[in-house]
Amino acid sequence: MRLLAALFLAAPAAAQEADPVTPASIVAESAPEEWVAIAPQDLLVMELAPDAQGRVRQVVIQLLPPPFSQPWVENIRTLARAHWWDGTSVYRVVDNWVAQWGGGEGEEFAEKPLSEGVVSPDAPYAADGVHRMIDHALGEQVAIFEQVFGTRIAWPFGKDAYAPHAFILRGWPLAADDMRLNAWPVHCYGHVGVARDLAPDTGTGAELYAVIGHAPRQLDRNIAVIGRVIEGIAHLSTLPRGTGDAGVYETRAEDTPILSVRLGSDLSDPPAFEYLSTTSASFARYVASRANRNDAFYTVPAGGVDICNVQVPIRRTRE
Amino acid sequence: MRLLAALFLAAPAAAQEADPVTPASIVAESAPEEWVAIAPQDLLVMELAPDAQGRVRQVVIQLLPPPFSQPWVENIRTLARAHWWDGTSVYRVVDNWVAQWGGGEGEEFAEKPLSEGVVSPDAPYAADGVHRMIDHALGEQVAIFEQVFGTRIAWPFGKDAYAPHAFILRGWPLAADDMRLNAWPVHCYGHVGVARDLAPDTGTGAELYAVIGHAPRQLDRNIAVIGRVIEGIAHLSTLPRGTGDAGVYETRAEDTPILSVRLGSDLSDPPAFEYLSTTSASFARYVASRANRNDAFYTVPAGGVDICNVQVPIRRTRE
Repeated sequence: MRLLAALFLAAPAAAQEADPVTPASIVAESAPEEWVAIAPQDLLVMELAPDAQGRVRQVVIQLLPPPFSQPWVENIRTLARAHWWDGTSVYRVVDNWVAQWGGGEGEEFAEKPLSEGVVSPDAPYAADGVHRMIDHALGEQVAIFEQVFGTRIAWPFGKDAYAPHAFILRGWPLAADDMRLNAWPVHCYGHVGVARDLAPDTGTGAELYAVIGHAPRQLDRNIAVIGRVIEGIAHLSTLPRGTGDAGVYETRAEDTPILSVRLGSDLSDPPAFEYLSTTSASFARYVASRANRNDAFYTVPAGGVDICNVQVPIRRTRE
Repeated sequence: MRLLAALFLAAPAAAQEADPVTPASIVAESAPEEWVAIAPQDLLVMELAPDAQGRVRQVVIQLLPPPFSQPWVENIRTLARAHWWDGTSVYRVVDNWVAQWGGGEGEEFAEKPLSEGVVSPDAPYAADGVHRMIDHALGEQVAIFEQVFGTRIAWPFGKDAYAPHAFILRGWPLAADDMRLNAWPVHCYGHVGVARDLAPDTGTGAELYAVIGHAPRQLDRNIAVIGRVIEGIAHLSTLPRGTGDAGVYETRAEDTPILSVRLGSDLSDPPAFEYLSTTSASFARYVASRANRNDAFYTVPAGGVDICNVQVPIRRTRE
C-alpha cells in the first residue's frame, strides 16, 4: 500500500509545486455528476430547543437503505409521521459514547403509547444471504481503484479489527463475515442506532442514540444501526454529560427538549443533501488520500485507513 | 478468536447464573496489587475557568514515559514549572477532531516568550531501534494470555488498519513497524499531542491538543503524542465548536481561559492515580472481555478489539 504514496511523490514537477492534494481538495475538485442526491424520505430532521443564546439547533439524520435494518427504519418513519417525538427529549449523554433521546424511562412515557403498528421487530441486525451484494461491492471497489490508480494499488481497508471484511456500498460503511454471506452496518462517529433493553428484541426505534466518540464497533450486530447524523452532530456532542446512572440526567430540567422530528418528505422545504458516489473516480482518490496523507502537513503516510475514518463526503446540494 | 466466547459460555453453571462478566466487573474484582501508581511528575493538572454555573473544571493529563516524545515532555515540564500556560486559553475546538490550547496565534503571544531552553526539538516522532522493547512487550502479551486462558487464545489486536503491529506496553497503546524496529505512541480518544505548523520541526509543546473524536490515527508519526487526558476530558469535549478558520474561535471572548497548569509534583496535594498493570491477569481478562463482549447485553462477540477501544483502566488511588 506504500505504492500510493510513491505515486503521489512521482507526480509531475508542476503538480508538486501546486497546492498539495488533500482529501478536501479532491472533494472540491470532484465533478457535479459524481454526486448522488439523498431522497427526502431518507432524511429525518430533528429540531432541538434553541440553545442558551437562542440559536436554532437542527440535527439531520440520513436513514439506512435496504437491505439493512428496514423494520426499524419503517417504525421510525411511522413515528415521525405521527409526530411521536415532539415533546420528548435528549435525556442521556455519555462522554466518548452516545447521546440518547426519545422514548425513555420515566412515568411520562407510560401515557405515550407508540403509534399503531410500531412494535419491536423480530429481525436480525445483519442482512443474511447477501453474498451477491457483498461480492459486487468488493468487486466494484477493486475495479474503480484499478481504473484510477492501476492494478497494483491495494484497497486500503485490508485490516479491520472487528470483521473479516470492511467495505463501502452506496455511501455506507459496512462489514461482512468471513464467508461473505452476511453484511451489517457499522457503528462510526455520528451513526445512529436503536436503544434497547437487555433482550435483543426490545427496541422499536422510538428511543435512539447517536455515537459521539470513538467508534464503538463492539456494538455492531448487537444493536440495529438505522442511520447517521449528516448535519448538526455538534448539537449532540457538546451537550453536558449526564451524572446519573449510565449517564442519564439526574433531573428532567437537564434534558434538551425535542421540538419536532419530521421526515424530509413531510416538510414543505426540506433540506437537500448529496453524497459523493462511492463508485466515482473522485471517491477512489479521496479514499487513497485518506489512507496515504502525504501533503503539506503530513510526512508519514499510514498506508491504510480505518473504515470509520473514511467519512463519506456529504454536503448540502448546491442550488 | 471465537474461542474466548466459547470459554465464557463453558463456564460452570453457577457462574452463568451469577452476574455476567463485563470489562467493568473484571476491573472491580481486580486485586489492589495489580495496580501501578502514576508518579506525580507524570501528571499535568490544568485548571480551566469555572463553567457558567461556577463549577470547577479540572483536566488531568498523564505524560508519556520514555522512550517516547521525551524532548517535548521535558519542554512541557519546563513550561508548567514556569507557569507559562497561566492566562492562556482553549481557543480552537473542532467536532470529531481536537480541542487545542496554549501558545496560539494572535498578538498576545508575541510578548510571551517561551521559557529558557524551550525550543522545537529536532527529534523523531517514533522511537527507533527499540526492537528489544517491542519484542519483549509482544512476548509479555502472549505470555499473560497463555497463562490466563491457555495456549490457544490469540491476542486480540491481530488487525490494525494503521500499523503492522499494535500492542500495549506499561499502560500505553503503541504501534510498531513491520520489522519491529520502531515503535510509536498512537492517537486515541483523549490523547494529547503537540500542535505544530506545516514544517515537522515547529512544535515546542507550548501549544497542545486533545483528541475529542474518533481516533485520528493518520496523525501517528506525523505529530508528537505526549500523553493523554485521564480525568476531565468532558471539560474539553463539550466546549462549543469554533466557527472560524480551522475551528479557531472567531473572538477571544469565546475562548475558555486557562487559570493554571501545574505538574503534579509541584502541587502540595496532587491528585493520585493508578492504572491496571497491563501485564496483570486482570488486564488480560479485561482485554479478552472487550474483544468478546458476551454478557447480559451483548449477544454477538466481535472476536477482536481496536487498540484505541481497549482503554487501559485508570482510577483515582483509593485512600
